[in-house]
This record gives sequence, C-alpha cells and structure tokens, in this order.
Amino acid sequence: MSLGSLRPDVSDFLSPYLPPNNDENLSRPSVTLTYAQSLDSRISKGHGIRTTISHPETKTMTHYLRYHHDGILIGSGTALADNPGLNCKYGGPDAREHSPRPIILDAKQKWKFSGSKMQELFLSGEGKSPIIVVDKEPADKETGAEYLACSCTDLGSFDWDKMMHILRTRYRIKSVMVEGGANVINQLILRPDLVDNLVITIGPTFLGRNGVEVSPTTGMSLCDVNWWRGTNDAVLAAHLSK
Amino acid sequence: MSLGSLRPDVSDFLSPYLPPNNDENLSRPSVTLTYAQSLDSRISKGHGIRTTISHPETKTMTHYLRYHHDGILIGSGTALADNPGLNCKYGGPDAREHSPRPIILDAKQKWKFSGSKMQELFLSGEGKSPIIVVDKEPADKETGAEYLACSCTDLGSFDWDKMMHILRTRYRIKSVMVEGGANVINQLILRPDLVDNLVITIGPTFLGRNGVEVSPTTGMSLCDVNWWRGTNDAVLAAHLSK
Ligand SMILES: NC(=O)c1ccc[n+]([C@@H]2O[C@H](COP(=O)([O-])OP(=O)(O)OC[C@H]3O[C@@H](n4cnc5c(N)ncnc54)[C@H](OP(=O)(O)O)[C@@H]3O)[C@@H](O)[C@H]2O)c1
Ligand SMILES: NC(=O)c1ccc[n+]([C@@H]2O[C@H](COP(=O)([O-])OP(=O)(O)OC[C@H]3O[C@@H](n4cnc5c(N)ncnc54)[C@H](OP(=O)(O)O)[C@@H]3O)[C@@H](O)[C@H]2O)c1
Repeated sequence: MSLGSLRPDVSDFLSPYLPPNNDENLSRPSVTLTYAQSLDSRISKGHGIRTTISHPETKTMTHYLRYHHDGILIGSGTALADNPGLNCKYGGPDAREHSPRPIILDAKQKWKFSGSKMQELFLSGEGKSPIIVVDKEPADKETGAEYLACSCTDLGSFDWDKMMHILRTRYRIKSVMVEGGANVINQLILRPDLVDNLVITIGPTFLGRNGVEVSPTTGMSLCDVNWWRGTNDAVLAAHLSK
Repeated sequence: MSLGSLRPDVSDFLSPYLPPNNDENLSRPSVTLTYAQSLDSRISKGHGIRTTISHPETKTMTHYLRYHHDGILIGSGTALADNPGLNCKYGGPDAREHSPRPIILDAKQKWKFSGSKMQELFLSGEGKSPIIVVDKEPADKETGAEYLACSCTDLGSFDWDKMMHILRTRYRIKSVMVEGGANVINQLILRPDLVDNLVITIGPTFLGRNGVEVSPTTGMSLCDVNWWRGTNDAVLAAHLSK
C-alpha cells in the first residue's frame, strides 16, 4: 500500500523528539520507543490478530520516524505474530537506502527470516537485512541475516545495555526505533536511562480486555510532554522521567 | 481547594457533547460518561488510593461538566474508596444550586452517607443530598438520603434502563454524568444505546499493572471524535458507535 503524504505540522511536532544528528553518544544508540494503542492501552485485539488502531496519516508518521533511525527493533512475539516488513516508504524511491536495519530479539531462534516479509523486501531491494539477537551463535545461519550473540541472563533476558552497546559499536547503529510488542514496550517504559524519546499514538477505540496490553509492572511519569491531534488520533511525544 | 478558571476553548470543545437543553427524552436522562485515565488505562494506582492523574485545569473542566448535569452517578466502590464530594464549584457562589444530585449504586448498602464528604457538603449548603440506589428499600434510612429501590437481577445487577427510567420520571433528572469507577465505566462503554456522550481525560503517566483498570469485556469503537489539548493532558470527546 502506498503512503499518504505527511501532515504538514508533524515534522515540527516531532523534531524535539528525533535522535540527534551528531554522533555524540558512543556507548549506545539513541532510542525511540513508539507504538499505537487503543484508549484501553491495547496494541492488538489479540496475539496474532493484526489490528488497525490508527488513521492512515499516522502510518505516514511512523515511516517518517523510521526514516530518521538507523535500526528498528521488535521482539520475536511481533515478528512471529505480524510478519512485519519494517522498511521505510518515506523519503523517496530508494526504499532500501532509507530503511532502518531490522533488529529482532529472538534468543531461541523461533523466527525465520526465510519466507518472511522482511526477506521479500530485502530481496526486492526495498529493505535492509535483519540483525537477529540470539543467545548463542547458531550452527545453521540463514543467508542474508546477521546474528548478534548476546548471552541471556538466568531469567532468559538480554542485558539491554550490553545489547545496545554492541549495536552502537559493532554495527554503528546510532539510533534505534523500538516498535513493540507489548513485552518489549513494558520493559522499556521503565528504562528512562535507555529510552530517549517516547511517541505514542492513541486511536479512539476500545479493543477490550482480551487484547494485548501495554502496562508496565510499576508506574512511570513523563516530562516534556506534547500532543499532536490528527483526524481521529492523538499522538503523545514525551520523555520518561529520570 | 478553590477552582482555577476554565480554559477559554473548553466550552466550545465540549458544547457538542453536553446534554440538550430541551426536555425531549421523557424515558431516560441524557447520559455522559466521563473519567480520567493514565496512558495505560488506569483510573487509580490501586483501590482506595486517590490518584491525581490530570492537571488542575481539567478539574475545572469536570466541574464545568457537573454544572451541566442534573445528576452525578458513581458506584459504591468509588464512594467507599474515595469519599468524594461530587458537588459543583463552577458557576458562582450558590454551590448547592449548581451541584448535580449524587446517585450512588449501592445495592447492599455498604456506603454510609453519615460522616461522608457528601453529607458535609450537604449540611454546609454546598451540595445536594444523594439518591442511593438499593436492591430493597432499607428498614433504617439515613436522614437526608433518598432511596431508589430497583431490584437486582440474579447476577446482583441493576437493570440500567429501568434505573435510568425511574431517575427521569420519578426524580425528574434530565441528565446524568457518570464519573466512575472502573466497574461502572466498563459496563457503560458497551452501552451506546444508553450513553450519549463520552469525555475522557488522558494524563501523561503510566500507573502500572496494579492500578484499577478500565477495559471493557469486548471492543467498542467511537465516532464524532474530537480532542482537546491541555497543558499536559489530552481530552477526548466522542460518541460510542451504535
Ligand atoms: N500497535 C502497535 O504499535 C504494535 C507494535 C508491535 C507489536 N504489536 C502487537 O504486539 C503483539 C506482540 O507482543 P508480544 O508482547 O507478544 O511480543 P514482543 O514484545 O514483540 O516479543 C516478546 C518476545 O521478545 C523476546 N524478548 C523481549 N525482550 C527480551 C529481552 N530483554 N531479552 C530476550 N528476549 C526478549 C522474547 O522472546 P522469547 O520468548 O522467544 O525469548 C519475548 O517473548 C502482537 O499482537 C502485535 O500485533 C502492536
Ligand atoms: N480517575 C477517575 O476518573 C476515577 C473516577 C471514579 C473512580 N475512580 C477510581 O475507581 C476505583 C473504584 O472503582 P471500582 O470498579 O472499584 O468501583 P465502582 O465502579 O465505583 O463501583 C462498583 C460497585 O458499584 C456497584 N454497581 C456497579 N454497577 C452496578 C449495577 N449495574 N448494579 C448494581 N450495582 C452496581 C456494585 O456494588 P456492590 O458490589 O456493592 O453491589 C459494584 O461493586 C477507585 O480506586 C477510584 O479511585 C477513578
């Protein structure tokens, strides 16, 4: 599907929340956490049910954000449920050039690049190849994918700081846009030390109790808050309070 | 606490979502559902923990809404947890005159008017006396309170239509603002036939998983959506889709 044009006030609204152009932070990428939710804080109707929450104009906004990032990170849950393309259709014809590098958190290698939408876009020159973050370097490697081995803790989690440091130093990724899903988002809402910018689209709908929920284990307040009003949606841009 | 002044654009924003001035609907009051939530759709940090979610300017907006309604309805959970006053401080010195009539859903009569903030405001001339909706007319009646007996179904619920009809016909209440809590809200989000207007304030904070959650048992979409942007909050006004 082609992309509608960017609403004229979006770039001004987002500019204080974009990664810096300079190359100051040498230890980790600038991180933007972004997702679309319903009023009742659901990001899909249920696992594996792709759900349209926002107006097409905020899809254009998402691609504008992708345009400004070197990497786009998701959890294996989203990769498996949604088979997303994660490329960037904003900014002109050279989609591969503009697209961020997909980064998939997939310790146990459940997701396959082969046969995915990401592979399709990579092969057609419309997207970049992914970095798959794994617990251990795999014996069988998929052609086109790169593997970032980042051993898990006893609880089966990657150390976010270590992973981000490797992305910055080894892969020269200066900015990462995190697009979900719920598990990843719920962790990062509680990491003001790691998340530089937060952009949330709120669609005027209730998805109901069986939807996939965003709500962190404890509270978190925000600062530097701004709101943009679309045709139907509101978009919040803010910083997590330190 | 005294009320700040109403932001000048609020009355224009709310006017399409206020109860009609005429007296057309003779079978039930016009119903406005309104509450303040966090981004993660929590309306308090936990049961019995009064939680400030929104900026003081939206408190003024709430009193402006109260000013435009004959009744203000809450569940017993909110009455017991928050001991709310429910009067109206907007519109000039005669607070009792401007205040809506409190309506408390309290089938099992757990809540006591005596000793409550509502009684305090009633005795000082700053609020009206409540209508307590009960399963059966009580033997011991509290002075100052009125009792609306509206027998419960086997599931222990009042029939909303019947209750609203009695409020309209017996008490001449032409408009009701429903202010919570979660249990009441979750029922009414699924009643487009009964709820005429929806006004939700979203505060830029996460209250976390242990908070009291608004999310209906199934999905519901909205129409005629508008957003107002405050200093920190966004306010949505809309209609439930029929
Ligand atoms: N509306 C939106 O903006 C939006 C955006 C994206 C996704 N979604 C929705 O979100 C849902 C998927 O969410 P989800 O919570 O199931 O999945 P998710 O957050 O995408 O992925 C969770 C998985 O990622 C891996 N992971 C996450 N953090 C990790 C860490 N620190 N260390 C190691 N592994 C980590 C784990 O995989 P393993 O268990 O394999 O180790 C975990 O189970 C889908 O329904 C999708 O449609 C919505
Ligand atoms: N942020 C906000 O805007 C806001 C506003 C209000 C409240 N709150 C918060 O919400 C929380 C309270 O919510 P809650 O869900 O516990 O309580 P609630 O919705 O205020 O009250 C629920 C109770 O009301 C009665 N009830 C509701 N519907 C009924 C029906 N159809 N028929 C008969 N009885 C009915 C039942 O009482 P019985 O079980 O006694 O029969 C039910 O348990 C508090 O933490 C409060 O701070 C927040």
